[in-house]
Amino acid sequence: MAVQTGAKRIVSFGEAMIRLTPPRHERIERSTFLDLSPGGAELNTAVTVAALGHVAEWVSVLPDNPLGHYLGRQARAHAAGTSHVQWVTEDQGRMGLYFLEEGTDPRPSAVVYDRKQSAFANLTPGQIDWASIFRDTDAFHICGITPAVSPAAKEESMLAIQAAKAAGATVFFDLNYRSKLWTEREARAAFHEIAPHVDVLFASKSDLGTFFDLEGDRPTVMETARTKLGVAVCVTTRKKSRASRSIALSAQAMGPPGEVVEADWKSVEIVDRLGGGDAFAGGFITGYLEDPEDLQKALTLGVAASALKHTMPGDFLCASRAEIIAAAGETAGGVLQR
Amino acid sequence: MAVQTGAKRIVSFGEAMIRLTPPRHERIERSTFLDLSPGGAELNTAVTVAALGHVAEWVSVLPDNPLGHYLGRQARAHAAGTSHVQWVTEDQGRMGLYFLEEGTDPRPSAVVYDRKQSAFANLTPGQIDWASIFRDTDAFHICGITPAVSPAAKEESMLAIQAAKAAGATVFFDLNYRSKLWTEREARAAFHEIAPHVDVLFASKSDLGTFFDLEGDRPTVMETARTKLGVAVCVTTRKKSRASRSIALSAQAMGPPGEVVEADWKSVEIVDRLGGGDAFAGGFITGYLEDPEDLQKALTLGVAASALKHTMPGDFLCASRAEIIAAAGETAGGVLQR
Amino acid sequence: MAVQTGAKRIVSFGEAMIRLTPPRHERIERSTFLDLSPGGAELNTAVTVAALGHVAEWVSVLPDNPLGHYLGRQARAHAAGTSHVQWVTEDQGRMGLYFLEEGTDPRPSAVVYDRKQSAFANLTPGQIDWASIFRDTDAFHICGITPAVSPAAKEESMLAIQAAKAAGATVFFDLNYRSKLWTEREARAAFHEIAPHVDVLFASKSDLGTFFDLEGDRPTVMETARTKLGVAVCVTTRKKSRASRSIALSAQAMGPPGEVVEADWKSVEIVDRLGGGDAFAGGFITGYLEDPEDLQKALTLGVAASALKHTMPGDFLCASRAEIIAAAGETAGGVLQR
Amino acid sequence: MAVQTGAKRIVSFGEAMIRLTPPRHERIERSTFLDLSPGGAELNTAVTVAALGHVAEWVSVLPDNPLGHYLGRQARAHAAGTSHVQWVTEDQGRMGLYFLEEGTDPRPSAVVYDRKQSAFANLTPGQIDWASIFRDTDAFHICGITPAVSPAAKEESMLAIQAAKAAGATVFFDLNYRSKLWTEREARAAFHEIAPHVDVLFASKSDLGTFFDLEGDRPTVMETARTKLGVAVCVTTRKKSRASRSIALSAQAMGPPGEVVEADWKSVEIVDRLGGGDAFAGGFITGYLEDPEDLQKALTLGVAASALKHTMPGDFLCASRAEIIAAAGETAGGVLQR
Amino acid sequence: MAVQTGAKRIVSFGEAMIRLTPPRHERIERSTFLDLSPGGAELNTAVTVAALGHVAEWVSVLPDNPLGHYLGRQARAHAAGTSHVQWVTEDQGRMGLYFLEEGTDPRPSAVVYDRKQSAFANLTPGQIDWASIFRDTDAFHICGITPAVSPAAKEESMLAIQAAKAAGATVFFDLNYRSKLWTEREARAAFHEIAPHVDVLFASKSDLGTFFDLEGDRPTVMETARTKLGVAVCVTTRKKSRASRSIALSAQAMGPPGEVVEADWKSVEIVDRLGGGDAFAGGFITGYLEDPEDLQKALTLGVAASALKHTMPGDFLCASRAEIIAAAGETAGGVLQR
Amino acid sequence: MAVQTGAKRIVSFGEAMIRLTPPRHERIERSTFLDLSPGGAELNTAVTVAALGHVAEWVSVLPDNPLGHYLGRQARAHAAGTSHVQWVTEDQGRMGLYFLEEGTDPRPSAVVYDRKQSAFANLTPGQIDWASIFRDTDAFHICGITPAVSPAAKEESMLAIQAAKAAGATVFFDLNYRSKLWTEREARAAFHEIAPHVDVLFASKSDLGTFFDLEGDRPTVMETARTKLGVAVCVTTRKKSRASRSIALSAQAMGPPGEVVEADWKSVEIVDRLGGGDAFAGGFITGYLEDPEDLQKALTLGVAASALKHTMPGDFLCASRAEIIAAAGETAGGVLQR
Repeated sequence: MAVQTGAKRIVSFGEAMIRLTPPRHERIERSTFLDLSPGGAELNTAVTVAALGHVAEWVSVLPDNPLGHYLGRQARAHAAGTSHVQWVTEDQGRMGLYFLEEGTDPRPSAVVYDRKQSAFANLTPGQIDWASIFRDTDAFHICGITPAVSPAAKEESMLAIQAAKAAGATVFFDLNYRSKLWTEREARAAFHEIAPHVDVLFASKSDLGTFFDLEGDRPTVMETARTKLGVAVCVTTRKKSRASRSIALSAQAMGPPGEVVEADWKSVEIVDRLGGGDAFAGGFITGYLEDPEDLQKALTLGVAASALKHTMPGDFLCASRAEIIAAAGETAGGVLQR
Repeated sequence: MAVQTGAKRIVSFGEAMIRLTPPRHERIERSTFLDLSPGGAELNTAVTVAALGHVAEWVSVLPDNPLGHYLGRQARAHAAGTSHVQWVTEDQGRMGLYFLEEGTDPRPSAVVYDRKQSAFANLTPGQIDWASIFRDTDAFHICGITPAVSPAAKEESMLAIQAAKAAGATVFFDLNYRSKLWTEREARAAFHEIAPHVDVLFASKSDLGTFFDLEGDRPTVMETARTKLGVAVCVTTRKKSRASRSIALSAQAMGPPGEVVEADWKSVEIVDRLGGGDAFAGGFITGYLEDPEDLQKALTLGVAASALKHTMPGDFLCASRAEIIAAAGETAGGVLQR
Repeated sequence: MAVQTGAKRIVSFGEAMIRLTPPRHERIERSTFLDLSPGGAELNTAVTVAALGHVAEWVSVLPDNPLGHYLGRQARAHAAGTSHVQWVTEDQGRMGLYFLEEGTDPRPSAVVYDRKQSAFANLTPGQIDWASIFRDTDAFHICGITPAVSPAAKEESMLAIQAAKAAGATVFFDLNYRSKLWTEREARAAFHEIAPHVDVLFASKSDLGTFFDLEGDRPTVMETARTKLGVAVCVTTRKKSRASRSIALSAQAMGPPGEVVEADWKSVEIVDRLGGGDAFAGGFITGYLEDPEDLQKALTLGVAASALKHTMPGDFLCASRAEIIAAAGETAGGVLQR
Repeated sequence: MAVQTGAKRIVSFGEAMIRLTPPRHERIERSTFLDLSPGGAELNTAVTVAALGHVAEWVSVLPDNPLGHYLGRQARAHAAGTSHVQWVTEDQGRMGLYFLEEGTDPRPSAVVYDRKQSAFANLTPGQIDWASIFRDTDAFHICGITPAVSPAAKEESMLAIQAAKAAGATVFFDLNYRSKLWTEREARAAFHEIAPHVDVLFASKSDLGTFFDLEGDRPTVMETARTKLGVAVCVTTRKKSRASRSIALSAQAMGPPGEVVEADWKSVEIVDRLGGGDAFAGGFITGYLEDPEDLQKALTLGVAASALKHTMPGDFLCASRAEIIAAAGETAGGVLQR
Repeated sequence: MAVQTGAKRIVSFGEAMIRLTPPRHERIERSTFLDLSPGGAELNTAVTVAALGHVAEWVSVLPDNPLGHYLGRQARAHAAGTSHVQWVTEDQGRMGLYFLEEGTDPRPSAVVYDRKQSAFANLTPGQIDWASIFRDTDAFHICGITPAVSPAAKEESMLAIQAAKAAGATVFFDLNYRSKLWTEREARAAFHEIAPHVDVLFASKSDLGTFFDLEGDRPTVMETARTKLGVAVCVTTRKKSRASRSIALSAQAMGPPGEVVEADWKSVEIVDRLGGGDAFAGGFITGYLEDPEDLQKALTLGVAASALKHTMPGDFLCASRAEIIAAAGETAGGVLQR
Repeated sequence: MAVQTGAKRIVSFGEAMIRLTPPRHERIERSTFLDLSPGGAELNTAVTVAALGHVAEWVSVLPDNPLGHYLGRQARAHAAGTSHVQWVTEDQGRMGLYFLEEGTDPRPSAVVYDRKQSAFANLTPGQIDWASIFRDTDAFHICGITPAVSPAAKEESMLAIQAAKAAGATVFFDLNYRSKLWTEREARAAFHEIAPHVDVLFASKSDLGTFFDLEGDRPTVMETARTKLGVAVCVTTRKKSRASRSIALSAQAMGPPGEVVEADWKSVEIVDRLGGGDAFAGGFITGYLEDPEDLQKALTLGVAASALKHTMPGDFLCASRAEIIAAAGETAGGVLQR
């Protein structure tokens, strides 16, 4: 997991949580033990970028207790930098948790969130030294969950985005609306505040409609997003379900030339679907930073990273660059050699 | 898991066993540990009724040793009442066990029964105070396994059925013929003795043919069962296999009007198929007690409970009323609001 | 686990939590799974009373989600009644958790509490129908943790104590000061408010000094507690450490005659020490209710229950009345036959 | 685990059972899985003899189902021969089971036997071809449990003993009285019938008193046993408890010269005490067969095998000859080189 | 697992390894434990032959340490004879290991071999007494992996094949080319040296092309193999993939009459695919030895054994003859009664 | 686990291995799974230094496969830097392994080493850029195992030591003689070559005798080591066994003034003793770097780190600086505030 020569440096900012899952589709209420794994959208993305050989620094706030240290250890083990994580006392906030029950048809997988009053949600805006963090940084990534966590988190998110911009980093934003955390009205206000700073926007067609009133067919919506919101590239992922654990993944991007570029569909047999979208973002970001002109490569890397993530337990992609390229498959692999 | 207002009270009677299962399709003969779970047809049904918010009392006989207490604890944990369970000394009978090996094609799942000389089989007829048990009781449920366990169990089964009838409870009977426990001839005699007391009969078309000489197409057989056996409602479950772990479930009922009512087919991805039929009975009984006129609702609740049971390990359904209704799906959910 | 004839009925009130423990002395921050077990002082005590053949009803507030249901199931499995538990939505409060790391010398066992904003702490005082709960009730038990959880919990504690008193139930109070939950000053005020209603007080000599300014040797302090605070019986437990996992337990009580009664010392090889004090309270309460004149019996039952609890994992005592009496040993067993 | 040159051949006869144990001192009634291990006095002894490099053939009766095959596999894995095991249908008898709960002070370890109607107990006397089994055999070993299992087992035990004698094999008998299986009166009759055929008798001083009315100090009792019962050697094991899991083991033998030979005391830190006595028998038998004149060696080998057995889970000793000799320690090791 | 009357005796020769596998598709680099299981082509085949009721002796070289003993125990547990295994010191070679990661699409299962300098690879040619091993032996089986392990292993392979031939045993050879162990050039030389001694050859059409320059359609290639290489029977397996864990298996054989005989296709839901080909060989060998004229039976037994192997974890088939015949299915079962 | 201000930077160099251990005293040869954990003397020491808040860089050679990556992940998770680890192909060397069986009296814990032909042993001397690694470095640590691994490893060890010296880093050397890796003669030559470069030497009195012919009482030997070998400080650890899992630890150091400084004895209840000496070195190095004048502090930190390491599974100390200071105890804690 050595850093490759000419590596880019990306910074991501967001909360991470400990996930607790009973094994083999058991129900939480009659489990005797729960498996632990780490997760958090921007951390998941940072881990993917690091797996692809670049330098990924994850900025967050964690409680200085065994649960916070669990997260720090897992991040470092997966090669995400934690030098700028803020460690606060338990009084200042707890470690966010979520409990996952994996269902099969007709039982949906169910999540119990237990993230209120987390160290991250309780952060004090203005204490993170973004200027120093963004020194020599190529990119910044954040998603729509982070400003939704708390007003303080939203305030810090804006500080981070502005500092990234000021430092000349490319800003990536994954819309990721979560109705459990805020209302559409609140989200809308925040997204409109964020959008003008964004270079590359990950968003579904329906979210672009809901939050930016963009209508029409997919290419129209993506094109309008670019021109109206002023983002350089608009990216959206696609999924086809064949059976409950057998799907196919693809993605589309629209960049400067106004033409939709599309990745090949990739068949996936699911072991664990969480973190798949974040791995896609990590793959796309990497490809884009390596060659902003080649959206085909960025999409292919994103889909391959996401597909591979689905084949292993936990939110994190654990794979080498060679494995990710191999997962892209033969044709796609060709794309990746460009 | 609170009891809902206006809750019905049902009593069920039958043996329960401890199931021992090696994990991940391993063979018992080279396993190093076995998972424990509780199971027993009428207990499984009681658990489902309790999950749906009614009062379920399970009557049985258990040895007063750690294995018997395991069963008692599991029943209570799943909200089935155990106040009328008879606890006997180990000398009077052992805890019944069964060992399950889960196969995949072409290896069938295999069961090793180890239930001889159980506390239940060795019960002394006449010692259970049915009159007091059936006070304020809406329904009684028993299946064809119970009288098959031993002559004493058959005698007690008849006492229970007669007392239920005398107390004005609706009597539910699930035919459930088990060739490992008795011959067709023995079963036939018992079923003919039981049938006149039954209000709602669960039976497959083929069993109705074998034991009651009912022939013809399904509606004819069900209708004849009603009129010839004198049961108010005849119910039968249906299953389609798509792949070895992917099936669809449905059920049909014929009530007073002589018309077949049918539940929608429900797709299921199987985690563990044991106890599915008993969960169906529990769902149907509940729906029927809530509204005897609405067989559609009873069937829908039965199929939903059964489908949900298939998605989790063990014989017991562990779910809330809300989850069961959700599993019925949108259309069916509408039925359940009636 | 049948209820014995002539059984007493006790009610207890307090919060319960889910405990999460890594196996084999591992550190939480590098664990891959955590064992679950239930715990809560008054629930632990209720479980012990039920194990001894009496009726124990545990009153509490739990979130209506899988974590809350875990607790409900565990309580019922151990024969504690949950009919009066209040189920609230997740918005009204979370399930309290605590994480335990088991140390060996020189590493202390460490607990990370994560119980803030729990459903119990957030209860709305006045909504529990204590009058109906205390119908036909012989005793009420509460400990000093409950009023410490939150102002609302303190208010409800007082309502419960007063209602118990009004209903003629014997009131048991275990002082149990927890410095992590409130200050000595706050505790002092609450303890002085509670004391006048208490019949039987469990407290250490040092806590009697801290909170009631009682000084002198142990008999003097206990006697003064009785006369000054107006409690009928004052009870205190004792412990000798032989080695880190090898201890001896005893207890003393001072009742009306003003004479100290003392239990035999009992050797214990520790598997898990949590819940030991609560099991002692459960044993003492049971003995006291069976014969208030025989403090020797109450102490013996308390020490035996506590000793046995130490030999098994988790906070709950899981044992039969016969086993608890056997654990008391030969001489003590004689005492228990009285 | 190669057979050494000049290896002796011993045959043992007796029932084996599957043991089911919850981990870490948990109570069976709240366990979710149970560990499996094989056990059976004469099989345990055969396994020790094989570990010491000789040929051990275990004769028994097992059901031809996965549980029986579990036992067969475990025996072969530990190098005990199973060529003469009789496989019977499940109708002819079940696999004997026992459930073990491991306690710590003051909770005793507890066993739930579930061995009634076993394939072994139900054996049909006279069907085992002992004459062919004993061809070229140096020794036969049986213990007092085997004739206690059932009248049929007792009858077959006598046939085996007589055939062994007739074939010129040395007969070893371990008294091993089990009050759960038969009365003292029944055992006494059987032991008196067996004794005249025995060459080497393992028995405690107290059992010699109970069943053969031998009184006096230990040397007197052992000497009288030899002369009165006509056995060549009388052997007894000794144990000192230091703490609940820390003991010391020794043993004494009295052979032809009428002088007590004694093994050094060996300190043991217990992991699992079951099978310790059977391992002692296996070590003694081996030493005795290698050199009947050197009782010191036989005792040393017996104590070392027993001590080593205590350090590992399960009833079986799993060790090499070199490890057993090393466990004997320096001085004792010298004895073993003789 | 009794040996049937009229049993044949087969000998196989080859290396076995310990396989270490993380559970549930986890990646090795973040696993906390690994499951152990035994495996080795010729041992796998021996285990299948023993499961079918014949005598199977596995000849190999193992280090005399706990890892080597693990393998010996597993072989004996599965009824393969180990009397002729050579035990060498750790200095002479290590135990070969391999680490397996089970993938799902698009992640391939991955193996890390760690078998260099193994006790087997380091064997000293000429020290195995083949003449005595082959006494009263019906067949010898070896595959193309064995001579590939090392020059010494190749030399010993030739000695074994020649001795088998000299002793009148039927020689079975499974081509099994492994590119990680040697080059095509090296393999080609060895295969040409071995072929003249082979009676029954298992090989794919493509391998027959690569190593023996046989071209044309499948029947032509198989027929040419027979005539040109001088083998009596040429056998090849076939597989169809329906989905990643759902396949169908079949096989073809061409014997003396020059006509292709073919087994029915058998549907299989895969739990673990390793060892499937070796189980096929074991089934075919058994059928062929029982009746060399009935290739249909041999193929049916081979496909059934292979299908059954796929339904359980590990490289070894663990099943009874009755189960294997049942797995063959109704029609095929008829074939097996011939 | 944040780096403290004014942190020192230390570099260590040596091999690490994966340890595989069966749980609960089981024997490897009948285990079904093995726990994984990382270990390696200099890595263990680096992990302790990082836990104490300093920057620790571990230099080593690892195979670029899942086993090598396991080690890299574990090192980073425990905050040891891996930027200078060399990743080589599997052809260049394997991952070293060792298998541990944990015994109890009289069975010793047993290790099977499987480390031959490791990537580290096969390193090519001269390829590590020590000059750049030692930039801004305060200390270098290596132990006597590293030069023993292979001639190449010894050559690289000398290059590292010389470069450290040249860069002005303090050189720490832990003698650590391993008879399984080389002869006393070979070790002696290497130790004499290394000694002149060493600033702080960790060695037992007996090793100082064996390898440097130093005789006399402990103070004399330590003093002579200082003057004769030219090291600034000589350190030795001490241990008293109370029972097999209950020990006491201490240590002595002799620095410039020629006076023996000694740490308090610390009682320890052992969970896992491996890595204890390396943790001591890590604690001592840290204390020494923070204040070279205060040997008392260095010893106290060393003993506390070692004691704490003994209370948790695995070779690595997982603790915070605060926990290590707390483990030192009250008096010692005072020392640490200096």
